[in-house]
Amino acid sequence: KINGERLWDSLMEMAKIGPGVAGGNNRQTLTDEDGEGRALFQSWCEAAGCSMGLDQMGNMFARREGTDPEALPVYVGSHLDTQPTGGKYDGVLGVLGGLEILRTLNDLGIMTKHPIVVTNFTNEEGTRYAPAMLSSGVFAGIHTQDWAYDREDAEGKKFGDELKRIGWRGDEEVGARKMHAFFELHIEQGPILEAEGKDIGVVTHGQGLSWTQVTIEGKDSHTGSTPMPMRKNAGLGMARVLEKVDEIAWSHAPHAVGAAGHVDVYPNSRNVIPGKVVFTVDFRSPDLSVIEDMEARLRVEGQKIADDMGLSIEFEKVGGFDPVTFDEGCVTAVRSAAERLGHTHLDIISGAGHDACWINRVAPTAMVMCPCVDGLSHNEAEEISPEWAAAGADVLFHAVVETAEI
Amino acid sequence: KINGERLWDSLMEMAKIGPGVAGGNNRQTLTDEDGEGRALFQSWCEAAGCSMGLDQMGNMFARREGTDPEALPVYVGSHLDTQPTGGKYDGVLGVLGGLEILRTLNDLGIMTKHPIVVTNFTNEEGTRYAPAMLSSGVFAGIHTQDWAYDREDAEGKKFGDELKRIGWRGDEEVGARKMHAFFELHIEQGPILEAEGKDIGVVTHGQGLSWTQVTIEGKDSHTGSTPMPMRKNAGLGMARVLEKVDEIAWSHAPHAVGAAGHVDVYPNSRNVIPGKVVFTVDFRSPDLSVIEDMEARLRVEGQKIADDMGLSIEFEKVGGFDPVTFDEGCVTAVRSAAERLGHTHLDIISGAGHDACWINRVAPTAMVMCPCVDGLSHNEAEEISPEWAAAGADVLFHAVVETAEI
Ligand SMILES: NC(=O)NCCC(=O)O
Ligand SMILES: NC(=O)NCCC(=O)O
Repeated sequence: KINGERLWDSLMEMAKIGPGVAGGNNRQTLTDEDGEGRALFQSWCEAAGCSMGLDQMGNMFARREGTDPEALPVYVGSHLDTQPTGGKYDGVLGVLGGLEILRTLNDLGIMTKHPIVVTNFTNEEGTRYAPAMLSSGVFAGIHTQDWAYDREDAEGKKFGDELKRIGWRGDEEVGARKMHAFFELHIEQGPILEAEGKDIGVVTHGQGLSWTQVTIEGKDSHTGSTPMPMRKNAGLGMARVLEKVDEIAWSHAPHAVGAAGHVDVYPNSRNVIPGKVVFTVDFRSPDLSVIEDMEARLRVEGQKIADDMGLSIEFEKVGGFDPVTFDEGCVTAVRSAAERLGHTHLDIISGAGHDACWINRVAPTAMVMCPCVDGLSHNEAEEISPEWAAAGADVLFHAVVETAEI
Repeated sequence: KINGERLWDSLMEMAKIGPGVAGGNNRQTLTDEDGEGRALFQSWCEAAGCSMGLDQMGNMFARREGTDPEALPVYVGSHLDTQPTGGKYDGVLGVLGGLEILRTLNDLGIMTKHPIVVTNFTNEEGTRYAPAMLSSGVFAGIHTQDWAYDREDAEGKKFGDELKRIGWRGDEEVGARKMHAFFELHIEQGPILEAEGKDIGVVTHGQGLSWTQVTIEGKDSHTGSTPMPMRKNAGLGMARVLEKVDEIAWSHAPHAVGAAGHVDVYPNSRNVIPGKVVFTVDFRSPDLSVIEDMEARLRVEGQKIADDMGLSIEFEKVGGFDPVTFDEGCVTAVRSAAERLGHTHLDIISGAGHDACWINRVAPTAMVMCPCVDGLSHNEAEEISPEWAAAGADVLFHAVVETAEI
């Protein structure tokens, strides 16, 4: 068993870096705080006797050697970046849970046949730079590195430049590493495990996602002296599209969700009718055909709304991944570990995207989930209990060590 | 007649300060650019032989002496600040039109009995600091100066501090001046004069306005893993309120307008269901009871929407003025001037708020309007012809000089 107290202490220590305003964290990718978090993680890994690899996307790889020089490493990890008003566990539990495995193996003096490598993937959250899971995506060959480097944040700062600025751009070629398997522990971020009273989610599938950035243009003009029939109110157009997004998602519920989290209105002045709005619609489903249907209806219904109002509308896909089926062998390793440890468990579909979803394309992969209070995540009030964290890390430990072979 | 070419040249010269991104201006109140514009105006006034007064709200007063030491001055002016994506004429025409009167009187060697004072009122636009017409409002005793100093911009910078920072906080007590009359020339910012083919709008009334800032709170949570029935989507709540705003305004059209120009969504991350939105609803009508009805319905309907969705909603009035009836004597002076000069004219109601609306509370006041292309304003593409500007300034000249007596 892992040392639950040590894991919890490390979680609390990491949470001191980039504190939020309401008890959570704001440690967004490629900020100075991200750099600080990385340095702390590296110091812990080195103290545990690991060597640290760093690739050109800033992905970190802390390696504990195995006994067989020919054996491919088993990888385990997640991400240390957070939402702007994020929690202390989303991503972090998976990285520090991986570190806890190495510390426990050290304590027990156990050597595995396969090396074990703990990873921290850059920019999983996708807030500062769309899309989410950007660097695991480059690792898996989904995006090119040049394209990733060119992504811009809201201030026009490029991903590549910011990665260099914080001092975490490595030399290693991205995706060159071959993995024997990959495991990721993550909080559920949804309400199912808690509601069902289960300790462990055995993640068999992941929902697919589609992010469509919608730009509506009308004409900015005076809110007082522009008669109602002459208005081209892009903000009102957006309101109607947001209502449609909700309607479209509900039409497939419970097998789909949809909302817009990002909204920018221009020029955003109290007495100017919005001439332009840009917002991003997030649709998800475990069923690819449902995602495709929602995307298509958004475009048709959005165009209709714009045409009716004399507005122009454009749609750009800024992120997406197909639903994922995780590797049967790895999933079985997770389920057996939970059984063996006597934890209640449930097969579940991940509602969120994870680095594991991309790594699954290039290596046998599975995920372990633990419950979180009220299913709440992407909120500073995100909470888990030390017992849930320890149970999740124990299952991760057993699944990884079984796969890495003693 | 005034010198139309000189007036136009001055307009173009002022427009070089704080250029926009699309041919207009971004010279928002209390920015460095606002300071630069003020300095240019002051240099022109001094060259025309005027002394410059400056009050504690930064209102500027360029005085040309009269022949009667007992006579109260006739005031004329508007504002030099602009919207973030504003035009070259909104406000500026009224200030430089006033200056052109003084220059023309100098050319002709005419002395008036009453002094003439050209004013530039601080923060008319209300974008950076709500409410609009802030400093003419303090002048007219509507707001206290302390309250005005405490207004904050989006970055939390206070009005009083920024006024001092740019170096335009004067010593003079605000509102201590007594006015014989006040005249303001302004572009219409609406489509009526151009559509009716009239050179001059004789402004008899001004619409009233109500700005209600609405805050809706839900719960920020993950867009992927939060099931549809568990969502408290403040962004969707806003969409529904915006639809209602439009419906409410239309129910009183053509005697009312309504829209929201300002919208902020929190935390504004693509994969976080908005936990909070803040937006400002702008309702206007020439009829006070209509404004009151719209305000009341916004609160009732907004509350209903929020209750249905499990959201909380708050309403705060952040700006407002009652419909205005301008002074009969001053209005007649404007109409007679237009007649005398052979300009086609029309009595109109101002759709926008103006400094004249507040000054009307403390002095006999009227406004002159000239057409603008497509009725477009609060847009960088705002346009007028040199002939329209000259005709408006000529009418202003005649009305002011008649009132100031030769
Ligand atoms: N786990 C997580 O929140 N990942 C961010 C990508 C997503 O929105 O699903
Ligand atoms: N004239 C003008 O645009 N004033 C700003 C205040 C308003 O919104 O009416």
